[in-house]
Amino acid sequence: MRKPVTILTEADLRALVPLDLAAIDCIEDAFRALATKPVAMPQVLRLDIPEHRGEVDVKTAYIPGLDHFAIKISPGFFDNPKLGLPSTNGMMVVLSTTTGLVEALLLDNGYLTDVRTAAAGAVAARHLAAADFQSAAILGAGMQARMQLQALSLVRPINDVRIWARDPAKAEAFAADISQQLGFPVAVSEAVKGATQTADVIVTTTPTESPILHLADVQPGAHITAMGSDAGHKNEIAPDLIEAAHYVADRLNQTRLLGELRHSPLADRDFPELGQIIAGQAPGRSSAQQITLADLTGTGIQDTAIAALALSRAAKAGAGQSFTL
Amino acid sequence: MRKPVTILTEADLRALVPLDLAAIDCIEDAFRALATKPVAMPQVLRLDIPEHRGEVDVKTAYIPGLDHFAIKISPGFFDNPKLGLPSTNGMMVVLSTTTGLVEALLLDNGYLTDVRTAAAGAVAARHLAAADFQSAAILGAGMQARMQLQALSLVRPINDVRIWARDPAKAEAFAADISQQLGFPVAVSEAVKGATQTADVIVTTTPTESPILHLADVQPGAHITAMGSDAGHKNEIAPDLIEAAHYVADRLNQTRLLGELRHSPLADRDFPELGQIIAGQAPGRSSAQQITLADLTGTGIQDTAIAALALSRAAKAGAGQSFTL
Repeated sequence: MRKPVTILTEADLRALVPLDLAAIDCIEDAFRALATKPVAMPQVLRLDIPEHRGEVDVKTAYIPGLDHFAIKISPGFFDNPKLGLPSTNGMMVVLSTTTGLVEALLLDNGYLTDVRTAAAGAVAARHLAAADFQSAAILGAGMQARMQLQALSLVRPINDVRIWARDPAKAEAFAADISQQLGFPVAVSEAVKGATQTADVIVTTTPTESPILHLADVQPGAHITAMGSDAGHKNEIAPDLIEAAHYVADRLNQTRLLGELRHSPLADRDFPELGQIIAGQAPGRSSAQQITLADLTGTGIQDTAIAALALSRAAKAGAGQSFTL
Repeated sequence: MRKPVTILTEADLRALVPLDLAAIDCIEDAFRALATKPVAMPQVLRLDIPEHRGEVDVKTAYIPGLDHFAIKISPGFFDNPKLGLPSTNGMMVVLSTTTGLVEALLLDNGYLTDVRTAAAGAVAARHLAAADFQSAAILGAGMQARMQLQALSLVRPINDVRIWARDPAKAEAFAADISQQLGFPVAVSEAVKGATQTADVIVTTTPTESPILHLADVQPGAHITAMGSDAGHKNEIAPDLIEAAHYVADRLNQTRLLGELRHSPLADRDFPELGQIIAGQAPGRSSAQQITLADLTGTGIQDTAIAALALSRAAKAGAGQSFTL
C-alpha cells in the first residue's frame, strides 16, 4: 500500500531543525559521504525568468545509506520585496531511495537551505580555520550574514566580530541585533578592509558581481568562507586572493561553473574538496600563516542530508500532517 | 499576503484533465510557443540510483504569457512491481511566474505526464500524418500504448489497428481491452513488420535499447511517432529509417541527447522541431509518399502547459484542498 505523504510547514521545520551542532554535524557527514561513497549529484538545473528578475535552481543528490533523497526547488525573484514578499523561497520534495515514491513535502520557504548553507560555513571553518580563532568579519547583512555568524559561534569561541555591508544602515541594524543575540559587541566597519584586516575568519555573504575581497585585505593565517556566489555572474573574491590561498571547493565541478573559481585563471587546475579534507584524503591548513579559502556554492548533498534529518525527527515527534493519496 | 497552496490529487486531476481534444490543443499551443516565444527550457536534470534500478528526471519550462510554470519530478523505479507498486510515479510543483512562490502541488503520480505525452503524439500525427489515415500500428502494450492510441483516435478516424509487443500475452490482453473501449477490432501481430507494414501511422512506445523498427518495416507515406526513448541508452528506430524519413524533433537539443537522433550518424545535422511545423516556420509532409518521423522525448513546455491547464480548471471548479502556510 502507498504510504501517506507527510507535509511539514516552515513552522514545523523551524522547530524540528534549528541551526545547532547536530545540524552542523549532519552537513559534515554529507560532505564526508561525498568524498567516500558513490554519491550521485547531477548538475544544478537552472531556469531564468528575466521579465520578473526571477531565477529557480533545482538541486538534488543521492547519498547511499540514507532512506530518502531531496529534490530542492529554490526560487529567487528579486522584485518580490516591492510586493511585500521575500525574494527567496522554495520547498523540498523528499522521495524514497528504494521506490522513488514522494514521501514528504517540506514547505520550508527556503528555511532548510538557510540552515544547511550556514552549517557548511561552520564545517569549513572547523576544518580550515585555526583551532583557537576568536575574531571574525562578516561581509553582508542579510539572512546568511546572521546565520553564518551564529553557526561560526557554535564551532569556535568567537568574541570579536566586525561587519561590513554595502548599506551602512543595514550593517548597523544587523550589528546591534546580532550583538544582543550573541552576547558580545559587534562593530561595523565603513570599508571592507577595516572589517577584514585583523579577522581570523572572514565570511562573504553578498550577491556582488565584482570582487570585494582582495589579498591585501586579509592577514596571514586567515580563513575565508565565500558563500555568496551560486551563479556564474556572481563573484566576491579577487583572483589574487584565490591564487595566494589554499583553495577548497564544496564541489569542484560546481565551483568552476558557479563559484569564485569560475572567475580565476586557475579554474582548470585540480583543487581539493571540503569532503576530502574532512575524510583525510586531502590536506587542510598546512601552517599558521597559510590563508585558506572555502568556495561554497551549495550542493544537493546538503539538501538531501538536511531533509533526511528533518524527516527522521518529524517521524519521531509525530510532527506534520499526513496526506493520503 | 501569501496565498494558500492548492493541493490536487491524482483523482482530482483525472477528473479535471481527461485526455481529450482540449488537452491535445493545449499541448499544440505549447509547441507553437516553443517556436514563436522566448521560452526558457533548461536541460533535463537526471539522477540515477542504480542500486534500486531507479532514475529521476526533473523537467521545467517557462512559457511567456502563462501565469504559472511547473517543475515536474518523474521517478522511474523498475523494481517497484516486485513490491506491488507502479514503476513510474511523480508530481509537479507549480510556481507563479511573477513571484516564484509555490502555488500548487499536483500529486498526480505521473498521470499528467501520461496525458501530455499522449497528446504530443496526437499533435505530431495531426501535423505530419496523411490527413485521412485510418490504419495504425502500436508497438508496446503499456500505459502509453493505450493512451497514444486513444489520442490518435481523437484526431484521425482510425478503424484498423494492429498491436505488437515483446510479450504476446500482454499484447493480446491490451488488444482485447482497447478494442472494446474504441469500438472496433484490434489485431495482434507476432512480428513488428506484421503490425507496421500496412500502417499509415506507427507509434513506438517501448523502452528498448536496440532498434525494433527499420526502414523495411514501413510503407511509403507512413508517419512514425517514436515516444519510447527519453534517455541516452534507449533506442527504438534504426538509423536507416531516420535517414529515409522527414525527421522532426520535439526539441532538437534534447533528441540529440535523449532521443532516437542520438543513435543516428546524422545527429549533428539541423532538423525541424514540431513547434516550427505547427507555426509554419518549417515544412511538414511534402508528399503522399514521404515517410515522416516525430522523435518525442518529452519536454518541460508540455509539463508547464498541462499544469497551467489543470490549475485554471481547478480554480474554476473550486477543486482541491487549500493549504495555508
